[in-house]
Amino acid sequence: MKLEVPGFVAGAIAAGIKKTEKKDLGVIFSEVPAYAAGLFTTNQVQAAPVLLDKERIKSGRCQAVVVNSGNANACTGPRGIEDARAMAHTAATALGIEEELVLVASTGVIGQPLDLAAIKSALPALAGHLSPSGLPDVAHAIMTTDTFPKALSRQAHIGDKTFTVAAVAKGAGMIRPDMATMLCFVLTDMGATPTALDTALRAAVNASFNAITIDGDTSTNDTVLMLANGLSGLNLADVRCAEAFQDLLNEVLATLALQIVRDGEGATKLVSIKVKGASSENDARQVAYTVANSPLVKTAFFGQDANWGRIMAAIGRAGVPVHPEAIHIYFDDVQMVKDGQGSGKEAEAAATTILKTDRFTITIDLNLGTHAATVHTCDLSIDYIKINADYRS
Amino acid sequence: MKLEVPGFVAGAIAAGIKKTEKKDLGVIFSEVPAYAAGLFTTNQVQAAPVLLDKERIKSGRCQAVVVNSGNANACTGPRGIEDARAMAHTAATALGIEEELVLVASTGVIGQPLDLAAIKSALPALAGHLSPSGLPDVAHAIMTTDTFPKALSRQAHIGDKTFTVAAVAKGAGMIRPDMATMLCFVLTDMGATPTALDTALRAAVNASFNAITIDGDTSTNDTVLMLANGLSGLNLADVRCAEAFQDLLNEVLATLALQIVRDGEGATKLVSIKVKGASSENDARQVAYTVANSPLVKTAFFGQDANWGRIMAAIGRAGVPVHPEAIHIYFDDVQMVKDGQGSGKEAEAAATTILKTDRFTITIDLNLGTHAATVHTCDLSIDYIKINADYRS
Repeated sequence: MKLEVPGFVAGAIAAGIKKTEKKDLGVIFSEVPAYAAGLFTTNQVQAAPVLLDKERIKSGRCQAVVVNSGNANACTGPRGIEDARAMAHTAATALGIEEELVLVASTGVIGQPLDLAAIKSALPALAGHLSPSGLPDVAHAIMTTDTFPKALSRQAHIGDKTFTVAAVAKGAGMIRPDMATMLCFVLTDMGATPTALDTALRAAVNASFNAITIDGDTSTNDTVLMLANGLSGLNLADVRCAEAFQDLLNEVLATLALQIVRDGEGATKLVSIKVKGASSENDARQVAYTVANSPLVKTAFFGQDANWGRIMAAIGRAGVPVHPEAIHIYFDDVQMVKDGQGSGKEAEAAATTILKTDRFTITIDLNLGTHAATVHTCDLSIDYIKINADYRS
Repeated sequence: MKLEVPGFVAGAIAAGIKKTEKKDLGVIFSEVPAYAAGLFTTNQVQAAPVLLDKERIKSGRCQAVVVNSGNANACTGPRGIEDARAMAHTAATALGIEEELVLVASTGVIGQPLDLAAIKSALPALAGHLSPSGLPDVAHAIMTTDTFPKALSRQAHIGDKTFTVAAVAKGAGMIRPDMATMLCFVLTDMGATPTALDTALRAAVNASFNAITIDGDTSTNDTVLMLANGLSGLNLADVRCAEAFQDLLNEVLATLALQIVRDGEGATKLVSIKVKGASSENDARQVAYTVANSPLVKTAFFGQDANWGRIMAAIGRAGVPVHPEAIHIYFDDVQMVKDGQGSGKEAEAAATTILKTDRFTITIDLNLGTHAATVHTCDLSIDYIKINADYRS
């Protein structure tokens, strides 16, 4: 896949932060200062790069992102903040730009000091070899336990002009080492004010990264950054551009979000939990998340067991008023529960066939109202325990 | 252990509800009508016996409990209620008492009709063979995936009189088949009004069964019943009796609760999560539960990995305001985190030694206030996934 976005160059290198020889340091650079928006973890324990970026993003401007894997620079105290600043400073010097225009991200082990010497030593060479086709290297450099790199690019046309939205991401949830960090960097040549970018990013993230779950854990480092350099000659101020851009951005982030769930540690199945007939969207979302995070439900998916009783029980403890005797549950198009009771052995046989596939949808109709929400999750497997228990031992 | 309580007889039988030849039907009978209190699941999806008992317990009186394993009689609609009533009716007839004085409990598979014929056929013979020493048989008959029966008896003296508190229980959390059902039946010869019994039971349950977690799932069938027949000649109206009784009841239920966690499916470790220095007891409890239910934290326990970063991250997402840089974390008496940062390699080595044992305490000091709470949990192991995934397949 071609991941080039006009005006952006990127690259990655093995700086020696990871114990392996793999790439672990990446840079994304916009040839002109770009506008920027960012969304960060809601965890109160926040890594140093998150704290730094939250300050800097207030300017709405950014020209470069420097990111490492192998170390989260989290729970590292004042030294962690100094290290994050030094990482940005070194990148700014190497790229010849203002330090304030550099944002930073880290993922990996929590609680160990960053190997700043390795980063300082590698950055000048890396900065000298950035290329328009370097984004896939960044997708590799941010991987931790991801089994495949996640990157995507889409284009659309407005009149005779073209704009591009490209993004790289790394996995969320049950991620060894240590944390469920989700990172995503979005690049576009669309023009926009920081406010318009922020609005578009929030909407797209709500429908993508905020609608997936692997284990309900939230990382100290989760970061989504979007840079817009305006080189397409188009601007979000034009309503046609705004609509086309939102559609493209939604598509790119939703696709990456599903890739992240599919690559959840040990995951063998991608399952969408759709709740409809709820009294509010919030209720629908809460029920969907409770079912999507239930270890009993997720283990039944792994075991290919049409165990609808566990789904009923998860609905009943979601903290949302329901009428159990009004609930219908479908496995794809097979009705497994009608009015709160099982549909019988024939439906169970059909549902079991569906559970043998690696992609299906559980639809829960609460029959209370008109609101709906969907959350994407994965199964809970033996490999997940192995991956997360064996780390560091 | 001697489990006899004056005035109570009990027994159990293999009625054929379970596919195996194991005991699956039990009866507890008080020779005089007893006063009673009950606490039931907060899940909105409630099994038929729970719905029936919640009505009957309002009278504050009970003379017999009939309980089966192998079938939860949950999500079974109007037929389920009829079956629960018929089970009570059959027991009442066999025992020669009023039907309204019989309470019912079930645990096992959800969503399948009860084998009422088997129960009706077995109850008369069972009722004819109840004995003062029959309580251990009931402990066996309520087991599902429990690996050992849970029963306990304690006595205390007030002046020249003696009273007994005995209880049987079955496991909570990640219980195959289907659900995390916790059942407990408490018998005493203390005298009490239903109101006094209810107050004592709530206090004891809050400090025991409501302070344990295995997977955060809540069953459709959870039931705790306490019967008091007054034959000791003592009464809770006497403040000395009330204090001694509460102490004994607390001890019995807390011990059973820890047995349940130790017997959690696949569990290899019993871990207490103690949160102190919180702004309120509710905050302390919420942080403790979030840590105790985090799959990443529980998997690290299984892996004997002193992965304090996962604990910090769970604290940060618990929904309680915290100052990360003020947090201390101890593994037993080893300080692993000081002011939100790791204490270094020496502490980690010491903590790893502690993690190799099967019983330890994680103490989290939020350094915000004076309130505390403790939750008991277990690790998340490969066997848990196997047990819960393989069921019915």
